Amino acid sequence: MKRIAVLVTDMFEDVEYAEPVRAFLDNGHKVICVGLEEGALVTGKSLHSTITIDRAVRDVTIDEFDALFIPGGYSPDALRVDPDAVLFVKNFVESKKPVLGICHAAQLLISARVLEGRKITGYISLVQDIKNAGAEYVDSEVVRDNNLLFSRNPKDLPAFIRASLELLDT
Amino acid sequence: MKRIAVLVTDMFEDVEYAEPVRAFLDNGHKVICVGLEEGALVTGKSLHSTITIDRAVRDVTIDEFDALFIPGGYSPDALRVDPDAVLFVKNFVESKKPVLGICHAAQLLISARVLEGRKITGYISLVQDIKNAGAEYVDSEVVRDNNLLFSRNPKDLPAFIRASLELLDT
Repeated sequence: MKRIAVLVTDMFEDVEYAEPVRAFLDNGHKVICVGLEEGALVTGKSLHSTITIDRAVRDVTIDEFDALFIPGGYSPDALRVDPDAVLFVKNFVESKKPVLGICHAAQLLISARVLEGRKITGYISLVQDIKNAGAEYVDSEVVRDNNLLFSRNPKDLPAFIRASLELLDT
Repeated sequence: MKRIAVLVTDMFEDVEYAEPVRAFLDNGHKVICVGLEEGALVTGKSLHSTITIDRAVRDVTIDEFDALFIPGGYSPDALRVDPDAVLFVKNFVESKKPVLGICHAAQLLISARVLEGRKITGYISLVQDIKNAGAEYVDSEVVRDNNLLFSRNPKDLPAFIRASLELLDT
């Protein structure tokens, strides 16, 4: 059982949250939703599904978790302006604990300035931002570079979930 | 009278389109909405206002216009994956014709790779992306660098409109 922090706020891509989280829970992992305000209800951009935030990111440290998962949509654009959220991501990436992300998730790693020399993927709109951050953009359904495991979009979800479960079990 | 191309698609920030466009029209300029599909109806992210696209970006050249205006919201994130939209922006920036942008508009200039050595501003979430693109991010309500005139967010609209009208009149 791994304790997985899911870093999320409004305008997340609904399926990119729901499908991995269901798979994590089905495989015996624990999921803790970390956001900007404890107890807040946040809403997805496409299906308008809602999530209750368990913990505010300013109140947690990475020591409480074994892995980080960042769903996409426009949630990362909103989170990357919060210094606590950016620091949380930076600490996770540097800790070597698994960091799983999809779609726009890489925006948080760009703001955390931890992509220099790394291989990563993300939503196609981010290609130039990822390259400019000093990373190598790889156009594959799953890109793994040590503790980073990233995918591009909802079509990659089956492969992303499979690879994520495997990495969590190591 | 200047012919202003407004490059826009779904999820634009409603007021960042509506207020400048009203001011352009009130001051005798002509506004042509350029998007992904001619005749398409696109919808704003906050107020759900709609705009009809006059011309598809793949069917136009910058010779038909005197200036470019790019509203913010998540419209630029969608447009920057379209090679014709990115080329249109690139040609405009390099032409020296006025390029007016607010909020997330700078994402299109990053994808067009025309920001090296320029001064610009944009929505706070883009600070690192703008710096990584080789530009200087300036935290002011209006930042003008030759033909580029940019603002950060809806609060900057009065100053943005004032400066834009002035630049269009030169």
